[in-house]
Amino acid sequence: MRWSLVVPALAALAIGGWPQDGLTSHPSLLLTAADVADITATMQESPGFMRSLERTRARVDRYFATEPDVPAPTDAGGGYSHEQHKRNGVAIREAGVVYQLTGARRYADHARSLLLAYADLYPGLGEHPMKKEQTPGRLFWQSLNESVWLVHAIQGYDAIVDTLSGDEKSVIEERLLRPMADFLSVESPQTFDRIHNHGTWAVAAVGMTGYTLGDPSYVETSLYGLNRDGKAGFIRQLDLLLSPDGYYAEGPYYQRYALMPLVVFARSIENNDPELKIFEYRDGLLLKAIYACIELSYGGLFFPINDAIREKGLDTVELRHGVAIAYALTGDPRLLSVARRQESYVLTGDGFEAALTADRGEAEPYEHRSVLLRDGPAGKQGGLAVLRNGAGPGHQALVFKATAQGMGHGHFDKLHWIFYDNGNEIVADYGAARFLNIEPKNGGRYLPENESWAKQTVAHNTLVVDGESHFGARLAVGERFHPEVLYFGSEKGVHVAAASMDGAYEGVSFSRTLVLADGVLADGPVVVDVLDVTGSRAGQYDLPVHFKGQVIATSPPLSAMTEKLVPLGSANGYQHLWLRAETEVAAGELFSMTWLAGNRFYTYSIQAEEPLQVLFAELGANDPQINLRREQAVILRMQSAGDSTFVSTLEVHGEYDAAEESTIGSEGSIAAIERFGDGDNELVKIVSRQRGERYLALSYDPDEDLKHAMRIDGREFAWSGFYGLFDQNGPVASNHSN
Amino acid sequence: MRWSLVVPALAALAIGGWPQDGLTSHPSLLLTAADVADITATMQESPGFMRSLERTRARVDRYFATEPDVPAPTDAGGGYSHEQHKRNGVAIREAGVVYQLTGARRYADHARSLLLAYADLYPGLGEHPMKKEQTPGRLFWQSLNESVWLVHAIQGYDAIVDTLSGDEKSVIEERLLRPMADFLSVESPQTFDRIHNHGTWAVAAVGMTGYTLGDPSYVETSLYGLNRDGKAGFIRQLDLLLSPDGYYAEGPYYQRYALMPLVVFARSIENNDPELKIFEYRDGLLLKAIYACIELSYGGLFFPINDAIREKGLDTVELRHGVAIAYALTGDPRLLSVARRQESYVLTGDGFEAALTADRGEAEPYEHRSVLLRDGPAGKQGGLAVLRNGAGPGHQALVFKATAQGMGHGHFDKLHWIFYDNGNEIVADYGAARFLNIEPKNGGRYLPENESWAKQTVAHNTLVVDGESHFGARLAVGERFHPEVLYFGSEKGVHVAAASMDGAYEGVSFSRTLVLADGVLADGPVVVDVLDVTGSRAGQYDLPVHFKGQVIATSPPLSAMTEKLVPLGSANGYQHLWLRAETEVAAGELFSMTWLAGNRFYTYSIQAEEPLQVLFAELGANDPQINLRREQAVILRMQSAGDSTFVSTLEVHGEYDAAEESTIGSEGSIAAIERFGDGDNELVKIVSRQRGERYLALSYDPDEDLKHAMRIDGREFAWSGFYGLFDQNGPVASNHSN
Repeated sequence: MRWSLVVPALAALAIGGWPQDGLTSHPSLLLTAADVADITATMQESPGFMRSLERTRARVDRYFATEPDVPAPTDAGGGYSHEQHKRNGVAIREAGVVYQLTGARRYADHARSLLLAYADLYPGLGEHPMKKEQTPGRLFWQSLNESVWLVHAIQGYDAIVDTLSGDEKSVIEERLLRPMADFLSVESPQTFDRIHNHGTWAVAAVGMTGYTLGDPSYVETSLYGLNRDGKAGFIRQLDLLLSPDGYYAEGPYYQRYALMPLVVFARSIENNDPELKIFEYRDGLLLKAIYACIELSYGGLFFPINDAIREKGLDTVELRHGVAIAYALTGDPRLLSVARRQESYVLTGDGFEAALTADRGEAEPYEHRSVLLRDGPAGKQGGLAVLRNGAGPGHQALVFKATAQGMGHGHFDKLHWIFYDNGNEIVADYGAARFLNIEPKNGGRYLPENESWAKQTVAHNTLVVDGESHFGARLAVGERFHPEVLYFGSEKGVHVAAASMDGAYEGVSFSRTLVLADGVLADGPVVVDVLDVTGSRAGQYDLPVHFKGQVIATSPPLSAMTEKLVPLGSANGYQHLWLRAETEVAAGELFSMTWLAGNRFYTYSIQAEEPLQVLFAELGANDPQINLRREQAVILRMQSAGDSTFVSTLEVHGEYDAAEESTIGSEGSIAAIERFGDGDNELVKIVSRQRGERYLALSYDPDEDLKHAMRIDGREFAWSGFYGLFDQNGPVASNHSN
Repeated sequence: MRWSLVVPALAALAIGGWPQDGLTSHPSLLLTAADVADITATMQESPGFMRSLERTRARVDRYFATEPDVPAPTDAGGGYSHEQHKRNGVAIREAGVVYQLTGARRYADHARSLLLAYADLYPGLGEHPMKKEQTPGRLFWQSLNESVWLVHAIQGYDAIVDTLSGDEKSVIEERLLRPMADFLSVESPQTFDRIHNHGTWAVAAVGMTGYTLGDPSYVETSLYGLNRDGKAGFIRQLDLLLSPDGYYAEGPYYQRYALMPLVVFARSIENNDPELKIFEYRDGLLLKAIYACIELSYGGLFFPINDAIREKGLDTVELRHGVAIAYALTGDPRLLSVARRQESYVLTGDGFEAALTADRGEAEPYEHRSVLLRDGPAGKQGGLAVLRNGAGPGHQALVFKATAQGMGHGHFDKLHWIFYDNGNEIVADYGAARFLNIEPKNGGRYLPENESWAKQTVAHNTLVVDGESHFGARLAVGERFHPEVLYFGSEKGVHVAAASMDGAYEGVSFSRTLVLADGVLADGPVVVDVLDVTGSRAGQYDLPVHFKGQVIATSPPLSAMTEKLVPLGSANGYQHLWLRAETEVAAGELFSMTWLAGNRFYTYSIQAEEPLQVLFAELGANDPQINLRREQAVILRMQSAGDSTFVSTLEVHGEYDAAEESTIGSEGSIAAIERFGDGDNELVKIVSRQRGERYLALSYDPDEDLKHAMRIDGREFAWSGFYGLFDQNGPVASNHSN
C-alpha cells in the first residue's frame, strides 16, 4: 500500500495495492508470522522471554479452567461486568498469542469460544445502562473501554483467524468486529475524530481491525479521519497531541495511557505499511514520546503531576510495549535495563528482541539527565523541566511544571515544583484524589475531592494569591494562558530552569527560577527557589511547600494547636487543611524547617523580606468520606503591597542510620539568605556554615553573549548569560563535582 | 582454665591453669590467630567476605585520612563528642581487624595512635558533665556507652598488641584499659552486678579485657560477679535475663541490643575457655536467643513492641554477629539466607565461615513458623506467641503479646496483638516515641510522648477500662503481674493462641483467644479475636485497633468531624488522639471497616453484643513539638455492666493492582458474627458470604483428651481440647491448605 503521511487526500488513490480479503498473512499486528517463526526457533536463548510466556500461558490456563462468564453489561467502571469484559478482552489476546507461540490448538479454541460468545452478545446491545457522559459504549459504560477491548480482541483474532472455519470467521467479523469497529468510528464521530487519547484508542482499534480484516476503509479513516481529509485521525493526532519533544499535554500519567494506542497502532502500521515510515514521522516523534515517558519518572514511578494515580510507573503494560518497540528501533542498551526492571516482556517480536539481548547481558544502566520537554504541538506552550543531579536510584530530581493547562485532567498549578532525593518524594504533588477501580470509593472514579482539593492551587507548591486558585480554577480560562520558559541550562553540579506566568491571576504576574546545585552552596545538594511576584494591587501571597517526612525542628519554633483544630479556610482547597501550628517571622529573619524522610534530613529556609506568617497544615478537614490521604504542608504567607519575592532554599543533608545507631549532619548549613535587585538584575546572597558566602546572580536573559553586572556592598558582580555564581572571591566555576 | 558454670564458688580454684601474662596468643576474642590463618589462606573463595573486608578497609582508610579527633567529653547522646567517641571506638576495632586480615602495618598504627590518645585523655576524666541518671560514665554520659566502647576497643587492642612496644602496651593498659575496666566493674558495682543489659555490656567489656590482658581476675568477676559468688555476673545473667526459649524480657528491640554482649562475650569465652561449653549452657540458651531474635521479625524488621525503634532489624551488627555464630554452631543453612540479606559479614572466624558457605550457594530460605516464646527466667511469666501462615515475604504474622512487663522499657499492653500481611504492618504498634540519636529531638533520647502516649494502653490493640492504662501505667505494679498463656497450637491453616490477664485492673480480668485461619472461615486468611472481659462493676471498655492504610468503606458509615477536631480525652494517651469521626452500632448489628494497605484490602468486623460506639481517631493532639507520627486507630467502646465480650474478625482479601488497573475482591466476606456461651464453653458463629456458616468452639481447656459439647439451635457441637471448628455439616478438619 502507499498511504501518505503528508498528502492524505491522495492516499485513497493507493488502495489498489491492498491485498484481496483473505490473502492477508496472519498474524500481522504486533506479532507477525515472521516474528513467530523467529521466536519459536530461538526462544530457548531467552529465559526471560520464556518466563514471560510461561506466566501468560499459566494465566490463560487458569482463566479458561472454567468457561469465562460473558455477562450482560450492567456495571459502571470497577463493577463486575465491567471488569469481566476487560478480563475477557485481554484473555482473547493472550490466548491467541499463546496459541501462536506454543502451537497448542486449545488456546486458539479458547479465544474462538470467547469471540463467538461476544458475537452472540454484541448485536443485541444498545447503549450501556450506566452510560457515562457524552461517550457511552455498549459493552462498557464508555466507548473508550470498548476501543481498548477491541485493541486487545483484534490481536487475539489476528492470531487465530487461520484456525477458523469460514462460517466462524463470518460470524465473528460480521456480528462482532465490524459492528464494533463501525460503532467506534462512523457511529461515534465525536470520539473518533477527536484529538484526544480517547480518539487515539478508537483509531487504533479500528485501524488494527482494518489491517486484520483486510479492509482498507477502516485503515484509511483511522489514519485520516472519517472524512479522510487528514483533519482528524491518527496522523493529525500525532501532529497535535504531542509536543516536538514527545510531551503529552495531560502529563505523564495520561501520557503513559495515550502511549499505548499510539505505539501499538504505529507498530501495526509499520508491519503492514512500512513505506509510511510512521516511526520517522515528525523527526521520530513516537520514539521521543517513549523516551519522554521514561524521563518523566523517578524510582520507576511517574511524576504525579495533574490527575495521576501515584502507583503508576514504568512497569505498566504500556511502557513494556513502548520500551520494547523503542529498543527494536534504536538498539539503545539503556532501554534494556528499563525492560529488565519491568520483569516481564511483551509477547511480540519487539519484546522478544529486547528479552534476548537483555538475557545476553547487554543491558546498561539508564541514567537520567536533566531535560526540558517543551509543551504544545509546536513546543511553544511552556514546558516541563526536569533537573537531575547525581546518578543511580538515590539521585536528586527537581520537576518544574511550567506546562500548559493539560486539558480536563490538568491541575491549576502554574510554576509548581516537586523534588525527589534518595529514592523518596520530598516535596510532593498530591496526584489525583481517586482510588482507581475501587468500587466503594465513588465507583473507582475521580472523587469530589479531586476538584475541591487535588486540582486547586493550594494543593501544589506554587503561588496562591488571595486564597484563590489560578484562573479561578476554570479550565476554559486556564487553556487560554500558558507559561513562558525563560531558561533551561544544565551542567555538572548546576542545573537551572526558569519560567514566567501571566494570566493566572488578574493583575498579578510571577516568575520563578529554580537552581539545583551540588557542592556549590553547601557541601551537598541545595535547591534555590526565587519566586518574583509583580502585582498591581495589594494582596495575600501564599507559597505552600508540601513536604513528606517528620518535622524535626523549626526556627523560630512553631506554636502548635494542642486542644483544637480548625480548617485553614473555607474554599479553594483551604477548607481541607487543618491548621496544625503557626509562627510569625519578622522582616529580615530566617525561617527554617528541618524534616527527616527515609534516612536523610532536609532543611527548607526562607528569609522574610517582609513579615511572614508560617502556617503548618495537615490535610483532612471537610472530608466526610475520609477520601483524602493524610498529608502535610507548610505555607509561607505574606501580605504584599503588590511586588514581593520569595527566596528560599532546600538543603539535602546528613544521614540517619537506625541500624548503625548513627546520625550525622542533622542540621542544615544555610544561615542567611538575602536578595538584592537593581531593576534589571537580581542577586541572591546565601550564607552557608559550610561554604561561607555564595551569590546567585540572575539577569533573566538567556543570551550567553550578553554581559551583566551588579554592584552590591561595594563589590562588583559580573557575569554573562542568564545566571552567575560567585563565592567570596569571585565567580565560581559551575562545573563542580562532589 | 577450668571455670565452671554450675559451681562458681569452685571456679577460683582453677585459676592455676591461666597462662602467664604475655603468653596469651593474640588475637583471641572473636577473631583468633587460627581464624586469621584460615581466612588469609582461603579468602579468595568468598567474594562476599572480601567485599565486607574491602568495605571496612575503605571505611578505615577514609576515617584515618585525617587524624581522628579525640574531643573532651562534653555532649549527651547524639551530640558531637558522644558520636565521635563512639566512632573512634569502632575505628580502633576495625583498624585492628583490617590489620590482621591484610597484614598492612599502617592499620595497626592507626589503632595504636587512637589508643594512645585515649590513654592520654582517660586518666584525667571525672564524671561526665552531662551524666545520665544513676549510671554516669566518663567518656560518655552513661557508663553503658563506655562498656560498649571498651567491647570495641579491646578487640582492636587484641588485634594489634603484638605490634606494640613494651612501653606502648604498658601505657595503654595501665592508663586506659585497666582504669576503664576497673571503673566499669569495681567502681560501678550497681551496673556491673546488675541483672540487666547494661550489666551484660559491662561484664562483656571487662571479661574480654581480662582475656586480652591475661588477667583472670577480670574474667572471674565477669563470669561470677564482683563477689565471685555467682549471684551476679555473666552466668547469672544467662540464668535470669533470658527465658528458657531465649526470649529477653524487654522485647525484641532490646533483645537485639542485649544479644551483642551476650554472644561476643560468649564467643570470647568459647575461644579461651572451651571447657566451659558456654554455648551449651541452659540447653543451648544463647543459640535459642539468636533464633528468637530472627523469629521476632517480619520483613527483616523486629516487631516494634515495647520501647522500640521501628527501623531496627536483622541487618544490625548485633544480628550479623549472632547469625554468624549461630551458623558456626549449627550449620543450619537457613541462617545463610538471613546472613545474605544482611549484605555484610562480620570480620570474624564465624563471619568467614558463613560467608564462605553462603557464597558456595548453600543458603536455604528461612521460613518462619508459628512459635510460642515463653517469658520469665523459668518460662512461667506468660509469653509471646507468633502465629505465622503462608511462606515467603508476603506471609501473615500475628504477634500476641502475653508477656510480663519487661522492665522500664515495657509498655502497658497486656494481651495486645499486631498483625502483618503482604510485607506490611496492618494492625500496628506505635513503637517508641523517640528519634534515636537525632539531637534536635530531645537530644535523641526518649521523648515525653513516650510516656504520655507510646507506653499507654490506648496506644495498643488491647482492652482499656475506664480510659485508664493497665496498672495505672505504674511499672512497679506491672512487674507484680503477668499473663497466663492458656493455649498455643499451630497446624497448617489454623493457628491459635490464648491467654488471660488478672491484675491489669482492679476487679477486671480478661482473656483473649486469637485464631489465624486460612481457607477455613473465608477463602483467604481470617483472624478471629475473642476478648472476654469479666468485671465486678460497670465500666467503659475500649478496644482500639491501630490500623495502617486508607479507609475505603465502613458500615454503618462514619460521621466525620469536618469543621473542628478536639482531643478524645484528657489523659492516659487519649489526650493525643483527635476524634476524627464516629458512629453508633446497635446491639446485634455488625460494624465493619475496610481499608487498603499496599495492594490488599483488610476488613475488620465486630458484632455489637451490646451497643457499640465506634470512634475513629488520629494521633497528633497535645503534641506541641510535633513529636508524634500521624497514625490512626478505630476504637470500639462499650458501656458494660461488668461482663462483656468483644468478638471480631479481620479478613485479608482482594488485590489492587494499579499497574494493571485491576481491582478484585475489595469487599469483605463476613456478613455476621454471633457468640453463644453456656458458662463453660463458648461458640462463635461466623457467617461468610464465601463459605457460609462456620463455628469456632472454645473450651479454654488445652487437654486434648477432654471432650466438650454445646447444644445451640438444636444442634450438637462436640470437640476435644481447647477449640473446635465446624461448618454447616460438622467438624472441619483444621488441616486446611489454600
